[in-house]
Order: sequence, then C-alpha cells, then structure tokens
Amino acid sequence: MNKNSKFNAAILIIGNEILSGRTQDTNTSTIAKWLNSLGVKVEEVRVIPDVEKTIISSVNLLRKNYNYVFTSGGIGPTHDDITSESISKAFNLSYEKHEEGYKILEAYYKPGEFNDGRQKMIWMPKGAKLILNPTSGAPGFNVENVFVLPGVPSILKSMLGGLKNQIIGGKPIISKTISLRTFESHIADSLTNVQNKFQDVEIGSYPFFQAGKLGVSIVIRSDDPNEIDKCCYDIFDFVKSKNIEIVNRD
Amino acid sequence: MNKNSKFNAAILIIGNEILSGRTQDTNTSTIAKWLNSLGVKVEEVRVIPDVEKTIISSVNLLRKNYNYVFTSGGIGPTHDDITSESISKAFNLSYEKHEEGYKILEAYYKPGEFNDGRQKMIWMPKGAKLILNPTSGAPGFNVENVFVLPGVPSILKSMLGGLKNQIIGGKPIISKTISLRTFESHIADSLTNVQNKFQDVEIGSYPFFQAGKLGVSIVIRSDDPNEIDKCCYDIFDFVKSKNIEIVNRD
Repeated sequence: MNKNSKFNAAILIIGNEILSGRTQDTNTSTIAKWLNSLGVKVEEVRVIPDVEKTIISSVNLLRKNYNYVFTSGGIGPTHDDITSESISKAFNLSYEKHEEGYKILEAYYKPGEFNDGRQKMIWMPKGAKLILNPTSGAPGFNVENVFVLPGVPSILKSMLGGLKNQIIGGKPIISKTISLRTFESHIADSLTNVQNKFQDVEIGSYPFFQAGKLGVSIVIRSDDPNEIDKCCYDIFDFVKSKNIEIVNRD
Repeated sequence: MNKNSKFNAAILIIGNEILSGRTQDTNTSTIAKWLNSLGVKVEEVRVIPDVEKTIISSVNLLRKNYNYVFTSGGIGPTHDDITSESISKAFNLSYEKHEEGYKILEAYYKPGEFNDGRQKMIWMPKGAKLILNPTSGAPGFNVENVFVLPGVPSILKSMLGGLKNQIIGGKPIISKTISLRTFESHIADSLTNVQNKFQDVEIGSYPFFQAGKLGVSIVIRSDDPNEIDKCCYDIFDFVKSKNIEIVNRD
C-alpha cells in the first residue's frame, strides 16, 4: 500500500479518444473531487488505450498499490468496448452474463429492444457487484477494490452518488485558495518558510492569467481545518508585509 | 520500445492540482493533437504528484518504453516546483545553473528583478538543451528523449512550435468523425464488421448528448488516407441501409 496518505485511490481512464486529444477528459476531476469529500486522495491517474494487455496490467498494478481504483470508459456495446472482459481476465474470473444486470436492462428497454449489442453491456466478471446507473440503465460494476464506470461524463457523475457507502475514507480533505496579484518569484521564499513550518499541509502555488492580469493562486490542502487556518494566517502575514493585493479567497 | 505504433510518446503531467481535481488538465489534449500532426501517437498519459521519487521512477520507465516523453508542470520558482531537480536525478546528471538560460532571463527581466526565485528556473540537468519560451521568458529543457515543459497551458502551447524540428515522426495521423443519430447498440455489429475488415484503421465509437438528443460519433484514425476513405465508404453503406440520419461529418 502506498504510504503517501491513509486512504488513497488511482484513476484509470481507458480510451483512445482521450489519448488522441479528440476528447477532453473531465472524469478525473469529477472522481477526484468526489473522493476528496469522502477523505480519499487520488495519487495517480493513468490514461491508456483500448488494448487488452495494457488494461489487464494497469488494473493489476494499480489495485495492488492503492486502496481504490476507479476505471472510466470502455463498457458500452461496441467492438472497442473491451474493459469488462479485460478486467475479468485481470482478476482471473470468467466473463459471463450478470443475471441481476440482465433483469435490470430487460425491464429498462421496450420489448424486443434488448438486442445482442445491449446484452453485451451486462457481461461482466463472475460475481461482480453492480453499480446502478440512474441515467441510462446499463450498470457499472465493482470487483474487490476496483470500480468500473462508463466514460460518458454525465452518466459517470450520476453513478457516483450510489457508491458513497462503499468507500471507506478518512476525514474529508479541505482545500482553501488564496489568489494574489503577484508573481511566484516574489513570494517563493516566504511560501517555502510556511511550507517548512506546516509539513502536513500541502501548499501549492499556481500562476494564473485573468482578465489580462497575472496572479498566483496559493492552494492549501489538509484534512485538519485548524492546520489550514494557522497556515493561512502565516500566509496573510507575509502578504500584508509585502503589500500584496488579495484578488480572491475561497 | 512499445510495438503499438512506429513513433510513439507518453505524457507525464506533474502536479497535485490535477490529482485533487481543482485544475482541469488540458495539456494532454494540446500535446497529443500536436504530436498527431507530426505522426507521433500518444500511447500513455500519467498524472503524478509533486513527489521526487515518483517523478524519477515515472520518467525513467516512460523514457525507456516510448520514443518521446513530454512532461508538464513543476518548473516554476516555488517550493513545489521540483521537476527539474527530479529529472536531473533520473538521468544521474548534476542539477546546475544553465549558462545560456541565465543569459536569456537576465536580459528578459529589468535590472535587479532577476532574483533568487527566478534564478531557480534556470537550474537544470547538466547539458540540457533549452526549449525557448516566447511567452514568459523562462525556458523548458530537453534531455535525450524527454521534453520538459511548464504547466500553464498558454505558455506550454507557445513553446511547442519551436520543438517541431526535434521530433521525428511518421506520416501524420488523420482522423475523420461521422456523427449519427442512432444508438451504439443499433450499429455495433455493423461497426465490428468494418473494423474486422480494416485492421490497420482505428475505429472508435462514442455516444454523445447534444441539444437534448442522443447520438454516436464514429471516429476513424489512420496514417493512410486511402484506408480511411474505404472505411468511411463501408460505414456510409450500413448507415444508408439502416436509414440512419447523419448529424455531422468532419
């Protein structure tokens, strides 16, 4: 288990469309924010192609290294949807029709419309636990610590809510942002001092351009609100003494 | 070397802000599209935290497995910018002031403004080749097949142009998209037949929601325009016989 934090996760985005640059991934951000609220920190993301051996090796590596693995993409009805079969192979489980899933989709579609293509969507690793889909019927599934979700962002989002009780996390990770009208190099030393004083708080510094003006957002993250407050206090201290304009804080 | 394609690359996004979900990565898409136009296919993307040993191990693995590695993030002046030093360690090169880079930034800033924080930005692995930055002065760098770029999207974009001559690729990868008013399950079998016939063409199928209506985008990719044309012809064939509306093609 990775030692960086108590409860951690990896995200595996499966799909040629992300690697080609055609489609902008947004599922990473959706899953990461949701996991943060449950006290789980995402420590790695991989984007891989629809290639069986790559899916198998990635899933097997990540599920050993992290508490949770969330996959996105490749569970639809077409030829390029090979995630479910690949994950069956990763777990050495037979790939078969899920009885409960079959009943759900049989009820979801009009009589005669539950065709072979659609039936492919309920083929899963034997014994998989369904992840219900309130948007478009076809469920995802969960085997051990691996949660298999679709690639379409709105559908993925709608399925996360139902998973809440299956995730054991720590205290929610809180994030504060202080945006300043300054340059990174102007505050680098002061910020290093604050980071050295608060070792358990993660302090990030990110330059931005907004309405034609430069600035720096300082992001402070921790599961301890008191530590965040103390850290912010020290930041405001040097901001005041350097006479830096505060653009925004949230 | 990965056998999936002749000229391939991996992208390594370095930054806690992407993993936390706070910031939406867009550099993957920018780099991937640019590489496609040069005939290089991105076959893996990793997003990792600002942790030295993770950066070192990821860079060393990816540079062995792919023709090119592009990193993004962590080369600014603040405490959380540890990419350059980590990459020096990955290559077992000393981390030192780059003389040419120093001169560039000395000329870029007003007298007296080239402070310690800013000088940090020209510390690099010994012998690194500069990647010039037409937007904000501070250069990236290149060691062997690893290209180190900043995280700010507009700056990264402005630096890619100057790299064109350093990338050896194959024929540009061409992509055609045919968007249909249908469901994936309605075309799955026909699409499988087309894919089986054109093994060297990559055919992807992606459901979409647009203006409240469902549809499927079929994306055909190859470096051979003739193969793409033949493949599209077969797709239009079944689209016509199934009486499916074509929403868009490009």
